Amino acid sequence: MNNNYIREDFMENLWNVWFTELHRGQAGLSIKVKCCIYSGESQYQRIDVLDTYEFGRMLVLYGSIMLTERDEFIYHEMISHVPLFVHPAPEKVLIIGGGDGGSLREVLRHKVVKEAHLVEIDKMVIDVSKRYFPKLSIGFDDPRACIFIEDGQDFLEKTKNLYDVILVDSPDPIGPGERLFQRKFHQLIYKVLKEDGILVAQSESPLFHQGTIRTMYKNLKDIFPLVAMYIAYIPTYPSGLWSFAFCSKRYHPIDDFDENRVKSANIRTNYYNPKIHQASFALPNFIEELLKT
Amino acid sequence: MNNNYIREDFMENLWNVWFTELHRGQAGLSIKVKCCIYSGESQYQRIDVLDTYEFGRMLVLYGSIMLTERDEFIYHEMISHVPLFVHPAPEKVLIIGGGDGGSLREVLRHKVVKEAHLVEIDKMVIDVSKRYFPKLSIGFDDPRACIFIEDGQDFLEKTKNLYDVILVDSPDPIGPGERLFQRKFHQLIYKVLKEDGILVAQSESPLFHQGTIRTMYKNLKDIFPLVAMYIAYIPTYPSGLWSFAFCSKRYHPIDDFDENRVKSANIRTNYYNPKIHQASFALPNFIEELLKT
Repeated sequence: MNNNYIREDFMENLWNVWFTELHRGQAGLSIKVKCCIYSGESQYQRIDVLDTYEFGRMLVLYGSIMLTERDEFIYHEMISHVPLFVHPAPEKVLIIGGGDGGSLREVLRHKVVKEAHLVEIDKMVIDVSKRYFPKLSIGFDDPRACIFIEDGQDFLEKTKNLYDVILVDSPDPIGPGERLFQRKFHQLIYKVLKEDGILVAQSESPLFHQGTIRTMYKNLKDIFPLVAMYIAYIPTYPSGLWSFAFCSKRYHPIDDFDENRVKSANIRTNYYNPKIHQASFALPNFIEELLKT
Repeated sequence: MNNNYIREDFMENLWNVWFTELHRGQAGLSIKVKCCIYSGESQYQRIDVLDTYEFGRMLVLYGSIMLTERDEFIYHEMISHVPLFVHPAPEKVLIIGGGDGGSLREVLRHKVVKEAHLVEIDKMVIDVSKRYFPKLSIGFDDPRACIFIEDGQDFLEKTKNLYDVILVDSPDPIGPGERLFQRKFHQLIYKVLKEDGILVAQSESPLFHQGTIRTMYKNLKDIFPLVAMYIAYIPTYPSGLWSFAFCSKRYHPIDDFDENRVKSANIRTNYYNPKIHQASFALPNFIEELLKT
């Protein structure tokens, strides 16, 4: 039988496989799937790599979209460059989670970084990323990178290191990510940050996860002298509007930001720039209200 | 038969009706529907009102989501307040499209506005909004409002009015909205704007509608001395990231913006505020690149 008999566009009409991630079973993004590249189950979670028509390859952990090739740059640039361009000398950086390597890649683009430690509980996420997402996982081979396969909280309890910047690049607060949203965890982070250290933690959608945000920011404000939310638009995350908690012992995210440092660092970015840095801390009224309650 | 026999949460599991709006047949938002409140067909388009679990009532024109009760405030505040707080005396305002009344409602909250003209081609959209979206359509009864049931371009060709601010609150450039994205239409707008007038036109998603944006901004830059894009997060519009074209004969959207006017106007908003006004003109690099091409 001649395979050419079936024309490709004809196949595309027949082939009708969809990935849908729902919020409360009521609304969510539907993405047409070309094929499933990998499905596996680690000690902690189900891991899938899907190829999609609109967003390219997509990493799905525990049923939630972690990243797609097309828009991953937004999340990874925004979690990394905002704190690294506020801290005047971020030489020692810790990433908790982020086994896909995207945040590590962005952190290592800062020449000032001398050591980047990454603590990922699930080695299989790193292995899958190395195999299927080579553009994300390039940082793992950098001599400045050091990878720990360990629970984030356990690592913080034991480590004798002190960090300039810590990024919490966690999944949603269900499954293996649950502990990374709790007060105990944030208290430990405070301890292993230097006296002028900065924490940035991804903090979910201000539209869909208001309960999580209320609790999380209340805890963070009890621990850190300066806590500010910043936002970014991430089309493949629930609701498309995403937030990050900027928590600092000393530096202010705007007042201590010098855009000349961005220019001289000369890092090529697709989303982040000095104006976006400042603009991302401007919050719509409904989010300001959410953070007051 | 006793209707109480069927428990409501049990019904919710059985009931599985979804509205999905797809981009290129490849990705889009899926929203679970409680019930269909209204379906009709006007001379121009199919019109549906659906009740949804996550976003409340939803107006669908020509198969596309126009608004939902839950997030309509974002679009309507951002299309209206940005130009009306830049223009120092927006006394006479024209809205083209916007038959749902949301933009008219926001425009009329500015006490300085003396006359607000609204030109909608499809009377049935206004009638449906008056019946099913009373919170949006309140402006139609305001003595300062004047409604014209007419094609936008025909209106502009005939009118002897001159306006301070014109809003193009159009649907997507298919069906009845198509003409509202063309050069001829923007040239007519330029003519009926006063010598210090401002046009704001919704300009689709910078992620999903790059072709439309390229053509539209090229045309606008040929006509207006100052053209700037600003953006807002609208979760129920394609990709969640939406853009507006700010086109001005004299005033600069940031340099001529005085945040004290926002304070003294004392309009209660859920999204818009002076910081958001300025931040919305900061564009991610990939959008800056799009506008250069």
